[in-house]
This record gives sequence, C-alpha cells and structure tokens, in this order.
Amino acid sequence: MRVKCIVSYDGTHFSGYQVQPNKRTVQSEIEAVLTKLHKGQSVKVHASGRTDANVHALGQVIHFDTTLTIPPEKWPYALNSLLPIDIVILEAEYVADHFHSRFNARKKEYRYKISTQKLPNVFKRDYTYHFPYALDIESIKKACHHLCGTHDFTSFCVAKTEVEDKVRTIYSIDLIEEGTDLTFCFTGNGFLYNMVRILTGTLLEVGQGKKTPDQIPFILEGKDRSLSGKTAPGHGLYLWKVYYDN
Amino acid sequence: MRVKCIVSYDGTHFSGYQVQPNKRTVQSEIEAVLTKLHKGQSVKVHASGRTDANVHALGQVIHFDTTLTIPPEKWPYALNSLLPIDIVILEAEYVADHFHSRFNARKKEYRYKISTQKLPNVFKRDYTYHFPYALDIESIKKACHHLCGTHDFTSFCVAKTEVEDKVRTIYSIDLIEEGTDLTFCFTGNGFLYNMVRILTGTLLEVGQGKKTPDQIPFILEGKDRSLSGKTAPGHGLYLWKVYYDN
Repeated sequence: MRVKCIVSYDGTHFSGYQVQPNKRTVQSEIEAVLTKLHKGQSVKVHASGRTDANVHALGQVIHFDTTLTIPPEKWPYALNSLLPIDIVILEAEYVADHFHSRFNARKKEYRYKISTQKLPNVFKRDYTYHFPYALDIESIKKACHHLCGTHDFTSFCVAKTEVEDKVRTIYSIDLIEEGTDLTFCFTGNGFLYNMVRILTGTLLEVGQGKKTPDQIPFILEGKDRSLSGKTAPGHGLYLWKVYYDN
Repeated sequence: MRVKCIVSYDGTHFSGYQVQPNKRTVQSEIEAVLTKLHKGQSVKVHASGRTDANVHALGQVIHFDTTLTIPPEKWPYALNSLLPIDIVILEAEYVADHFHSRFNARKKEYRYKISTQKLPNVFKRDYTYHFPYALDIESIKKACHHLCGTHDFTSFCVAKTEVEDKVRTIYSIDLIEEGTDLTFCFTGNGFLYNMVRILTGTLLEVGQGKKTPDQIPFILEGKDRSLSGKTAPGHGLYLWKVYYDN
C-alpha cells in the first residue's frame, strides 16, 4: 500500500531535506523512523522536491510504500511519536500505487517571510528574514507582474543548475502585509534550484530602488544569473503547499 | 550615568536570566558585552527579576551604570551588534541615579501561551505549550476571578521559596483566544517563584474538569503547594512588560 503524507518541519537544524552522508536531514530522519516501524526493513521516502538547509515546510508532501495495515488517521501519531520534535506529520492517506509525490505535483506554493522592523525580533530570527529597510511596495508589485507567466527563468536559478528546461510558469505572486511583516506568496507549476530565493532577493532590490520593475523583462531575456538580485537567505522560506490532480 | 533598557530574549538556549557558574545565562551575556564596551572594566547589570530556563522575555527591564557618553537611541545598536542573536535590546534611556529596575517595579505582566491543537506546530515547539485537550473556558474564567485580588499565594509557589511575605496582588488575568491558541495574561504587583507557571497549570486542570473553580479559595486558604496544580513548562512563559512610576 502507498501512503501519502503532508509533512511540516522546522528547517533550522537540518542540512536540508535530502539524504546526505553524515548530515542531519529530514528525509533520513523519516526513513529511519519508517525502517524502525517496519522492523528493520528499509523504507524509501519520496518527496515533492528538496528543500535547502534552514528552509521550512508547512506542507511538504511525501509518499512511501508499506506492508503495515495502520488506519490512515493513525499514521501521523505512529510516526510523530518516533520522529524528532522538529518534524511533524500533519496528515496521511492511502493513495493509488501509481501516485508519485514529485512527478504528479501540478502546482506548488512557496512563501517567503520578511520583517522590515528596525530591530530584529528574537523570536523570528530563524523564521523570517530581517531586512530593516524601507521598501516601495508599488514597485515590487509591478515587478511581480512582469515575473508572472511562462518564462525561461535561467536568470533566476543557480548558474550551475543541470536541469535542461528552465521554462516555468508562475501563476501568481501575492504580497501579504501585516505591520512591518511582509510575506511573498509564490505559486507556480514548478520552481528551479534557489529560484524563490533569487526572485525574493531581486524583488527586495526593486523595493529598495536598486533595480526598476521595468528591468525585469530584460533580466528574464538575458538568461544570465548575474543580472538578477542576491539570493535571499534560506530561513525566510517555506514550502507552503503542493497541489495534485484529484 | 544610569541606563535603563528594555530587553527581549528567546529563553530556549539559556539556563535562565541570572548568572550561574559555567552556564549560559542572559545576565552573563549582557555583562560580558558591557564589560567589553567599557574596555574591560566590569559592569554589573540589575534586572526587574529573574526568569527561569526556557522562559522568554519581550519586555525585561535592566539597568546599569556607565561612564560612556553614548546617545540613548544608539545604545540598542551598540549592544545588539555585540550580543548573541537570541538577545535584543529594544530601547534604552538615561534615568535618575536612584532608579532601580527591581525595587522600583510597580506592576508586571507575564503571558503564558498554550496551543490546544491536536498535532503540535513545529514552529511553536519552543514558544507555546502544546496541550491538546478540550478546555472549559468558562470554568477557567471563574477560577481566574477567584485568583484575582490580594491573597497569600503560598499554594502557588515553589514550596522551598524563602521569601517571607507571600502576599501578592493579582490585578487581572485575561484570556486571549485565537483559534486553538490560548494566551493567559497575568498582571500583578509581583509574582513568587514559579507562581505564573503554577497558576497556569492549575487553571488548565480547572479547564479539564480535574478541579472546579470553587476549589480555588480553599487552595489559597490551605497555603500548601500540594493543593494546586502542576507547574506548566517554562517554554510557554513570557515576561511581557514591567511597569514603573513615572
């Protein structure tokens, strides 16, 4: 039987999602717990995608195959009781054997949280990027408008990315403003390596007036990473939700 | 010159506020930075009161004496640039030489944060007490009513507390409900050792029906720690604000 789970994790103390030798990763923690539950039989976990060190998830989706007959509503409790406290399984359900958390993902939402207040908030230091500068929100919104749609995002991913097709569609970039907190909500059919963090870094440079919204089409056309802005740090980023066809 | 500061800290990685040998404490971190700023001349810091391990502060108040002539608005930046990231000085001002952060405190507010949602929130694990049980809020409010006022709080402090006078006045206990989050706001003229955590633990037992609101007067009269509820854990507690005469 194949199990699909929605997983939240605090990325602060992980070297990212994916298994790496001698590193603490989300995948290795979940696989260790599943292997234990399956009495030592190794269980491989597949996710909708990787997340980097310090990046958080509210709605990461994973799947794995099991021989255990645990009722779906009991799976979160069975796993959470063994998982470390910075990973929580929120939901579980049995799915068809051809379901794949990565290949069947149709849409993803990432959020990036920023605080522009002058002094840092100690309680948010690992969860929000402290960026204590005045931002021109109207310019940011104009830049967002230019970024939405189907484009080659070569300028917005790590230069050494080996994916051949760098065309992606961004459906929307919404801004949530709450006092000095600003959240960017990106939805798209997929995101390249570091793409959300580079988009955010570039939008912040637009907000500061270091770049203009009208430069965005040229940055896209240039297909050159050096044209876009800095990579915003990982700890402000959240994999928020993954959507599948039903 | 005497400087008064408002300090916030994330208590997660501290063995409490007060200096202890070979332990990481808030006071020792601040004193180390002040000593450095004063070129090795030792500077003693006084606070409105101690906080325990894992307990947070949004509005701790400290004072210290200095020979430096830094403009008041520059003090937070001077200190924050040297302090670890889990301590942030929010405000500073010069005060009269007879001001004392502890002896002049007239009123204190502590808040205690609880989450009653079934599954824990990974992002709140160090900042909110996860208590996934149904609570009768009306009973809790009745119990709060019995606790407010001037009472001998012997039943609500650590048995070995050496303070002679255990009479304190609680001005108000307000509840803030936001979905499955519940915050208790306690204001009083002072609180005994562990008092807010024992009050909270007792109110949660009332909410669960393990104790009735009408037992509160008898618990107070009994002057016996064994009559009240469990001590709620430190990580849900915040020293919120300290008030002084102006």
